[in-house]
Amino acid sequence: MTIETTPQEQSQERKTAPWNNRVLEKRATQLALIPSAWHLPATLLASPPASSVETIRASGILSADELAWTETTDIRDLVELVKSRRVTSESLTKAFCKRAAIAQQVTKCLTEIFFDKALERARELDDHLLCTGEVVGPLHGVPVSVKDRFDVEGFDTTVGWVGLTNKPAKSNSSIVQLLESMGAVLYVKTNVPQSLMMSDSYNHVFGQSVNAFNHALISGGSSGGEGALVGSGGSILGIGTDIGGSIRVPSNLQGLYSICPTTGRVPWDCSFLHQHYLVPPVAGPMATSLATTEYFMESLLASSPWNLDPSSVPIPWRKELATPPANRKLKLGVVFDDGVVKPQPPIARAMRETVDALKAAGHEVIEWDASLHITTTNLWTKGILADGGQHCRSLCKIVDEPLIEGMVVGKESDLLSPEEREQFEATKFTVQTAFLKQWVSSEIDALLMPVLPWVGYKPKTWVKSKQWLGYTAMWNLLDYAAVTVPVARADRGLDSVGGGNAEWEGHSIRNESDAFNYLQYDIDLVHGMPICVQIVGGRFGEEKAVAVGKVVDELMNPTPLHP
Amino acid sequence: MTIETTPQEQSQERKTAPWNNRVLEKRATQLALIPSAWHLPATLLASPPASSVETIRASGILSADELAWTETTDIRDLVELVKSRRVTSESLTKAFCKRAAIAQQVTKCLTEIFFDKALERARELDDHLLCTGEVVGPLHGVPVSVKDRFDVEGFDTTVGWVGLTNKPAKSNSSIVQLLESMGAVLYVKTNVPQSLMMSDSYNHVFGQSVNAFNHALISGGSSGGEGALVGSGGSILGIGTDIGGSIRVPSNLQGLYSICPTTGRVPWDCSFLHQHYLVPPVAGPMATSLATTEYFMESLLASSPWNLDPSSVPIPWRKELATPPANRKLKLGVVFDDGVVKPQPPIARAMRETVDALKAAGHEVIEWDASLHITTTNLWTKGILADGGQHCRSLCKIVDEPLIEGMVVGKESDLLSPEEREQFEATKFTVQTAFLKQWVSSEIDALLMPVLPWVGYKPKTWVKSKQWLGYTAMWNLLDYAAVTVPVARADRGLDSVGGGNAEWEGHSIRNESDAFNYLQYDIDLVHGMPICVQIVGGRFGEEKAVAVGKVVDELMNPTPLHP
Repeated sequence: MTIETTPQEQSQERKTAPWNNRVLEKRATQLALIPSAWHLPATLLASPPASSVETIRASGILSADELAWTETTDIRDLVELVKSRRVTSESLTKAFCKRAAIAQQVTKCLTEIFFDKALERARELDDHLLCTGEVVGPLHGVPVSVKDRFDVEGFDTTVGWVGLTNKPAKSNSSIVQLLESMGAVLYVKTNVPQSLMMSDSYNHVFGQSVNAFNHALISGGSSGGEGALVGSGGSILGIGTDIGGSIRVPSNLQGLYSICPTTGRVPWDCSFLHQHYLVPPVAGPMATSLATTEYFMESLLASSPWNLDPSSVPIPWRKELATPPANRKLKLGVVFDDGVVKPQPPIARAMRETVDALKAAGHEVIEWDASLHITTTNLWTKGILADGGQHCRSLCKIVDEPLIEGMVVGKESDLLSPEEREQFEATKFTVQTAFLKQWVSSEIDALLMPVLPWVGYKPKTWVKSKQWLGYTAMWNLLDYAAVTVPVARADRGLDSVGGGNAEWEGHSIRNESDAFNYLQYDIDLVHGMPICVQIVGGRFGEEKAVAVGKVVDELMNPTPLHP
Repeated sequence: MTIETTPQEQSQERKTAPWNNRVLEKRATQLALIPSAWHLPATLLASPPASSVETIRASGILSADELAWTETTDIRDLVELVKSRRVTSESLTKAFCKRAAIAQQVTKCLTEIFFDKALERARELDDHLLCTGEVVGPLHGVPVSVKDRFDVEGFDTTVGWVGLTNKPAKSNSSIVQLLESMGAVLYVKTNVPQSLMMSDSYNHVFGQSVNAFNHALISGGSSGGEGALVGSGGSILGIGTDIGGSIRVPSNLQGLYSICPTTGRVPWDCSFLHQHYLVPPVAGPMATSLATTEYFMESLLASSPWNLDPSSVPIPWRKELATPPANRKLKLGVVFDDGVVKPQPPIARAMRETVDALKAAGHEVIEWDASLHITTTNLWTKGILADGGQHCRSLCKIVDEPLIEGMVVGKESDLLSPEEREQFEATKFTVQTAFLKQWVSSEIDALLMPVLPWVGYKPKTWVKSKQWLGYTAMWNLLDYAAVTVPVARADRGLDSVGGGNAEWEGHSIRNESDAFNYLQYDIDLVHGMPICVQIVGGRFGEEKAVAVGKVVDELMNPTPLHP
């Protein structure tokens, strides 16, 4: 698919495009759904602090209680508050609606907004608890946000496409049904890039989502709206999707805990996407604590999702595997640098500090041979482009909307024939088998890696690069579970260059992607931004990765990062 | 793909075809691998009894001990014999080699024969046990046969194609690796139809496999060689594959116990076949007792196959689910007739007798609403034909071999475009979801159905019909586990028509497939042939189906069917 214009030009183009009225109408509808009492004062909106948390605290829109509830990081505390009837679901939901409304004004993290419906549902749950003394499920009364990729009956699922506006979903996605059966209150959907194929969440319908901690920077993608919302405390639990890093990248950029699971672990009725992307997409949780992500997984799997979703695998949450072993130290692999794109200094330092802390605590950490990583990532790219861009072209055509620059979308020359697809699957299986052999023979509990080789970019920067997604995408090709845990923040004092960082300064550029990553590094731009470690647990290795995550979290975050 | 000639003509054509020398050479090599001492006497070979068991017993080639070992039905007894060193693996292996050699002479059930290698392996295992006092694994020293779809290093995997002869596999399939790591001795591979897409095992390379119990009838397909071999007692455990009934059909025709599992349960490195057939193929066990199939599953899954095969799902054998509930009766669904092809009288009677016995034992049996079955089967057909026959065409082309009549193979007009494939996957998911809803809300432990609507046919009969595979194929589309258990034999006294079987005699023909099935019924042809019930356990429902199978087996087979 040809990239015809730059995003800036497209934005200009939007204003004169025939479909612009449709966009303006959608945006006006969206804005009208935020009560005026929750609008930021004009002065604050004109020049907000860099971080949405500060804006929210400064706004005076939330009460002290509301601030405290929404800045809770462990979802079990909120469940307990509602269950014990110390706080109603209605009050809690209202607090999150307010906070999401403010986050939206500074980060453009939302797409669909349905506060009224949420409050009505919350009151019903409160009544139910009052009348029966019973909760509906393990998330009774707690608001949960979902990416604009899941269907919520009665609301659009635009996936960032103008052509998909004003087409309300006729039913709920399976994960939405399950969340509701677990007692959750849905109140917003969150922003994405067109087609989900970019590490930045920008589209013609809802515009540009920016980072919760620094609005000059991107929130990542494709679950970037979710990242900005959860990072702002506007949601305690968000459900994203990932086919190449779409949960992990925004989680990294907002310092979130997340789980990118193996296919079948978190039910999602888009398994049929396999046919245009030859890599399976997955859904998973994003949150401000590991405990919240684990509680979601444990509760979800206790609800027998395999009785609702035919792509779900009947493996309950294996608590014993999610607990660090009591009788032995961990054995971990580590990749500091995949040999393709050298991670920027704050990432390199974060990885070193993490490994040093693990070693100091007595754990064994071995350097992992990353020689299969390039093959695996290249195969991922081939699979993702395999439909030759046909799917995106058909979505563009609905209203003659142009494709946005930077999308990882195939050109016609990338189209694979049925025989080539079969060959692709055979090669994939061979690579998966070889990787599994390396994995099993290493006897590691998990593998530690950067999520990304970069810390942060302004909008429209990354999209112009020859984007290297190898650190995350290869795990989708292998269908391995991975967890993110925040471990550091970029620091002007520690991560500046020019002061004798010989490893960085003496680096020889390897390729176009590496050159971009090297030359764009600017500690002044990214000072203070969070950095996660990626903990890969293997196929169906969610629990193992969480167990290792607990060890890393305890070592690296004696004081919680959030709020 | 055009069907150009009848099998008979093809057979004639074979004799004059340029590739016939290749076939003759392959057959000569195969024959030479059977020691002359194991050749049947000319008189017996010229006019053998109908059943290979009788021929084997009458041949005098096996000693009394050898007969007893090979007529054992529970594999655990053989494991125990070898483990306790009462019988060497070498003796046991030799007994099965002999028996397989005789079965081959009367049923043409084999493709690759490697007795020498097997005996050498058996001696190694005996030495290992003698020296260490330890067994290699749970199948130590016991011979196991595999369908000619799995790679065994150094031997052809022809899958019935002339063009694939003389191309020895360079490595072992994952299931073969696992069998060997479990201590099994491989000694033969078994016959199939070209491409595996037929319920009859006939091909140009190895000819026509026939039924173990009546050589005038077919052994079924595509694991028909395996069915005939296990039915002859030439193997105690065979591994087949199934994409539309290929394990269950030959199991039914030879009265075997078998498990057709959900994808991922039994590792098999052909998961990439998804790309030309949009239905997942699976591997599974075939045996003369339910205990043997369960022991295989339990042992296999205890060996952590997910550490070898990246398509394997880490669910161990859940013994508690495989045990009939002690505190309650079963609730079962039953389909006597799917409304498309009416089962022939012996099948109808077998189903009735099974249901009556279950009810008499206090179990609840409800009639299942089969209204989704046709849609599901039609979708299966669409998926199977989706590559437009390209895969088979390319295999035909290697040596200009014609396609055999009766193969379920697509024509060019069946080819699905990438968009149509995506639509197919979406529809499949919708059907799977609807079916799951019906399944879960019914609260059944399992569903009982015929495996087939017919009892038996002569070669070249079924292939001329408009083959209806709905009774088995729909479960592959849904990816539900199913088990076969023999429950009856066709009986001239009970199943004749003309004597007032009003239901059969008054039947109104529904369609071409039904007409064929109705008109071809001939109790004189099939008298004495075994009939199985199919027990469907749902997705990942292997254990549930086995639990129900145990109840059915105990009720219906107070005296074992085999040998």
